[in-house]
Amino acid sequence: MKRKIYLKMKTLAEARELFLQKFFSLCTGEEEIDCREAAGRITAHPVSARFSSPSFHGAAMDGLAVHAQDTFHASDDSPVTLDIAGGQAVPINTGHPLPRDKDAVIMIENVLMSADQGQGVIRAPVYPWQHVRKAGEDIVATELLFPTNHRIAPADLGALLTAGCPTVRVRKRPRLTIIPTGSELVNLERDDQEVPPGKTVESNSAVLAALGRQAGAEVTVSPLVADDYENIKKYLVQAVDSPTDLVVINAGSSAGSADYTVQIIEELGEVLVHGVTIMPGKPTILGAIKGKPVVGNPGYPVSAIISFEQFVLPLLAAMQGTEPEEPMQLTAQLAKDLPSRAGMEEFRRMITGRIDDHFVTVPLKKGAGAITTLTRANSILRIPAGSEGLARNTEVQVELLRPRGQIEKTILCIGSHDLTLELLHDFLKKSNPSFPLCSTHVGSLGGILAIREGMAHIAGSHLLDPESGEYNTSYLKRYLKDQKVTLITLVYRQQGFMVRPGNPKKILDVHDLVRKDVTFINRQAGSGTRVLLDYELAKAGLAADSIAGYDYEEYTHMAVAVSVLSGKADAGLGILAAARALKLDFVPVTEERYDLVIPSRFLDLPMIRQLLHIINRDDFKKAAEAMGGYSTRETGQVRV
Amino acid sequence: MKRKIYLKMKTLAEARELFLQKFFSLCTGEEEIDCREAAGRITAHPVSARFSSPSFHGAAMDGLAVHAQDTFHASDDSPVTLDIAGGQAVPINTGHPLPRDKDAVIMIENVLMSADQGQGVIRAPVYPWQHVRKAGEDIVATELLFPTNHRIAPADLGALLTAGCPTVRVRKRPRLTIIPTGSELVNLERDDQEVPPGKTVESNSAVLAALGRQAGAEVTVSPLVADDYENIKKYLVQAVDSPTDLVVINAGSSAGSADYTVQIIEELGEVLVHGVTIMPGKPTILGAIKGKPVVGNPGYPVSAIISFEQFVLPLLAAMQGTEPEEPMQLTAQLAKDLPSRAGMEEFRRMITGRIDDHFVTVPLKKGAGAITTLTRANSILRIPAGSEGLARNTEVQVELLRPRGQIEKTILCIGSHDLTLELLHDFLKKSNPSFPLCSTHVGSLGGILAIREGMAHIAGSHLLDPESGEYNTSYLKRYLKDQKVTLITLVYRQQGFMVRPGNPKKILDVHDLVRKDVTFINRQAGSGTRVLLDYELAKAGLAADSIAGYDYEEYTHMAVAVSVLSGKADAGLGILAAARALKLDFVPVTEERYDLVIPSRFLDLPMIRQLLHIINRDDFKKAAEAMGGYSTRETGQVRV
Repeated sequence: MKRKIYLKMKTLAEARELFLQKFFSLCTGEEEIDCREAAGRITAHPVSARFSSPSFHGAAMDGLAVHAQDTFHASDDSPVTLDIAGGQAVPINTGHPLPRDKDAVIMIENVLMSADQGQGVIRAPVYPWQHVRKAGEDIVATELLFPTNHRIAPADLGALLTAGCPTVRVRKRPRLTIIPTGSELVNLERDDQEVPPGKTVESNSAVLAALGRQAGAEVTVSPLVADDYENIKKYLVQAVDSPTDLVVINAGSSAGSADYTVQIIEELGEVLVHGVTIMPGKPTILGAIKGKPVVGNPGYPVSAIISFEQFVLPLLAAMQGTEPEEPMQLTAQLAKDLPSRAGMEEFRRMITGRIDDHFVTVPLKKGAGAITTLTRANSILRIPAGSEGLARNTEVQVELLRPRGQIEKTILCIGSHDLTLELLHDFLKKSNPSFPLCSTHVGSLGGILAIREGMAHIAGSHLLDPESGEYNTSYLKRYLKDQKVTLITLVYRQQGFMVRPGNPKKILDVHDLVRKDVTFINRQAGSGTRVLLDYELAKAGLAADSIAGYDYEEYTHMAVAVSVLSGKADAGLGILAAARALKLDFVPVTEERYDLVIPSRFLDLPMIRQLLHIINRDDFKKAAEAMGGYSTRETGQVRV
Repeated sequence: MKRKIYLKMKTLAEARELFLQKFFSLCTGEEEIDCREAAGRITAHPVSARFSSPSFHGAAMDGLAVHAQDTFHASDDSPVTLDIAGGQAVPINTGHPLPRDKDAVIMIENVLMSADQGQGVIRAPVYPWQHVRKAGEDIVATELLFPTNHRIAPADLGALLTAGCPTVRVRKRPRLTIIPTGSELVNLERDDQEVPPGKTVESNSAVLAALGRQAGAEVTVSPLVADDYENIKKYLVQAVDSPTDLVVINAGSSAGSADYTVQIIEELGEVLVHGVTIMPGKPTILGAIKGKPVVGNPGYPVSAIISFEQFVLPLLAAMQGTEPEEPMQLTAQLAKDLPSRAGMEEFRRMITGRIDDHFVTVPLKKGAGAITTLTRANSILRIPAGSEGLARNTEVQVELLRPRGQIEKTILCIGSHDLTLELLHDFLKKSNPSFPLCSTHVGSLGGILAIREGMAHIAGSHLLDPESGEYNTSYLKRYLKDQKVTLITLVYRQQGFMVRPGNPKKILDVHDLVRKDVTFINRQAGSGTRVLLDYELAKAGLAADSIAGYDYEEYTHMAVAVSVLSGKADAGLGILAAARALKLDFVPVTEERYDLVIPSRFLDLPMIRQLLHIINRDDFKKAAEAMGGYSTRETGQVRV
């Protein structure tokens, strides 16, 4: 173990410039392939037409082929009779070649045929070349069909075949080798396989391989290599010497005691960059061995992806004579203050949705280790290195990870956490794949405040009014008096103490929490569960500061359950479904009502209508009750 | 041959509703696959986490694992020494599990280590759980990772593996069978294969197969079937009876004498729709045989694609529990009047680009037979059925066929046609794949007027001033006096008469054009070539109306060359390079200058700078001269 020192730290722009410049000329070779397999590939040369299309003058309509001069005198007053039997006019179908002596087509709709089809009467002339697809009208032999570096689209295959080019020279797919390293990692192959304690599943190579393939690369993933200098070196040499265009080694790219990558690349070749001022993604190494690009890619899953996207994807594109597609952007209003470290360009994962006539964007957690911040995000906010953060309500540009149409239909759900929201998400997506439900958990009060600020469509809330014993309504009156909102019950649910199986500390009610041998794990202030705890403590005449762990807060029922399961705490207040999910024991405290707060102006949005429709469906209620601790006896009831 | 009667004509919306409703429940089955192969696939069920992640409390930093209480008294004034040798503090690397009795990590940067690494001195406390990635922080076992109908992205593989789900149940790929039909068609397999006269290359099946695969389908293409009722029926029965989910028969979907598809589907099953009020794409059949969807897809290449996109792609998506991605749209100013047939929804292929602070969109030709209208287009304008057309300068919404970033960098080139523009296009794209050059040919004067109206970035022009003998400058003074433009010479080029090989009609100069046995093919009014012809006629004292074919106009040199080659005309005026491309003979008339007109405010746009850079490069000049009839002696010279 040593201090982390990055001797070749660069900004993103510097690092990219350095890297791409060095390897820009490394275009992969070319190959000739059947154009029917060429959709998505990139032309290595200009492609010119071999045939004209049409290759002949052909009928553009079904009708009679004629010499236009023969029709010039036709009118309503003096119809002209064309001799079909004698060949003056020739029946012709669309697409068929015009006889040599004909130069126009009369639409069949404009011909009165004789009974034996031997004659046709017309009442209007046609001009020369009318309804004729002239030879070369679409494509002229020798003309440029596609320039070099053109990405071939499905429709392009039509032009290639029509123009006589059934094969096409395209860039070869670049070959990418990924070497996963890490003594703490194990491969996971089976659905019933367990992971030894202290070990983590190796997952980055699968993600990077999929990203590489999506970018057109042929990907090889090496076996998982333990953190051992000689061993990693051996695999790296093997990879560089294999027929590959680009090697990515993941991870060991930092400067910790078991981070050998930088020394190995230094020993075998050259380190261009070590450390980039981006977050996540700082511990990135860009280097070269025997003229081949070698990237030391960071180990945290989000860092690995962002570093790969910033350096590997542009190089893979350049090798194929193209550039990565720029992400779609849109302007959104930032829902929270967002502090950021000056000197680092930050990639924050965001959930963006449309509220009224503008977009709102909500940050997810920062952690580079949390892959779900990326799988749940639908957008990325890049905070420039010069910024120390952004204030709430700032207009920001976010880069979209999903089609804009889906962002527009996203339901922003902020507030208290409940497991039936996951169920709702699944039912919604099953009923209409374009309606995503994105939840962030900030507690009941946080949700109500987000509704007040116009930052969410719906908020889950279970705030008990200690005076009246009623749920939610008094809070709406206090905080949402300026807008018309609808309050709809989602479920009743059991709250109680979650304890380890067998209840080893014998926690039976709220009085046990103040015992010296009991450590508690709390929910954050403003959460309905916290309000409930404080209510129960007050009822029992107990002081909060007499409870060990009262100040340790988590944001979800499941996080509280994990704290108990892992031994960090002995008890936490939460819902039965969470205890059951992690096989904890549960000591009931009370049943409470969990409602959805929805500004009434949103009730007619298609996705909200669909959501309310689902809540009232029997299959949804049945599935909710099956989770345990839920009653749907008043589900769907409108309270306010 | 009979009149075309569509008995079951529907609007697009009606037809789609009818079709999707009928087959909506036809979800394809599901299969369990390795999640490493699952990127792009759609979940068939909700996926829940089997493991928490992290599965243990682990170090989030390299440093020392400690019990936080041991550090509480550390400060600058009274540093605390931690006993590493005795286990009070334990060196730990990022990602590794925290020892059972430890609850925080001190960053290595904040520790002063003793020489033997047996002790570490700290000057600040850490709080409990600082720099610890707590178990379940990212994923809690049992939580919903992905709902049903979720399209799996590369990052999602990380979540699946980490959460212990190496296999995943996804929707099976729908199986699509395409039957190409048409007696006039031939398959093209080899690059040197010729096509018999009157025959056309079958290309639609390749395009539709590629579109189908892009939409996730497994595609089978049947052998090419001749237009014969029993034969088509046999293949259709075979296809429906095979393990397929959807059959597309292309074409024969119209109502001509050889269009059997509708009768065959009627005989074997049910026709839901015949004829849709869209253009292109009208002759579409939607039907069902033995409960399977069968689509009769029109034969013209653009019609085939648009019909497929409107009906087959949404069904393929629905079968997989998803929806087609909505195309990106933008608002653009229409560059031309666009008449349209009321009662038909029209899909016009457009070239869109950015001029100053707005987008401009230029229509390509209408013809459904011209595949290049789709391969050259970067956008589609949908004109609603209710409209009789749109006026120039109207703001319209166009749907993008290319990434918006590329549209923004598109060079709109309108004006005279010259073959070196194709060369320029290739050089430009080779130097920077994001800079497309889109040319439309409206003649020199048309180009200058487009520049005046702010509808183009550059215009090619070779307008001779008969008074002064100068090129272009007097026209700029007349038409572009209100803006500052730059005139740059692209090439000098030979203009002359293109005639069939051997010059059978012995055309030696302009006097031969008035001969009774000679038919001419002209260029459109406003083109520089037309101005040149009229100048030559005036010089020779010849009257335009004494020339047969003076009124038959084409818009490009190549179209004129094709007219001569195909025998439609005996001579046309054009450039040597066009004659040479089609192996015609060439009778020189004069050498002329061909310039680019560029509003000076565009000279600093990156793509225009790149274009001017290329024009001045030797390799470009060399390639231009190699085309024949070009001199680059003043290429790149600024005239005005």
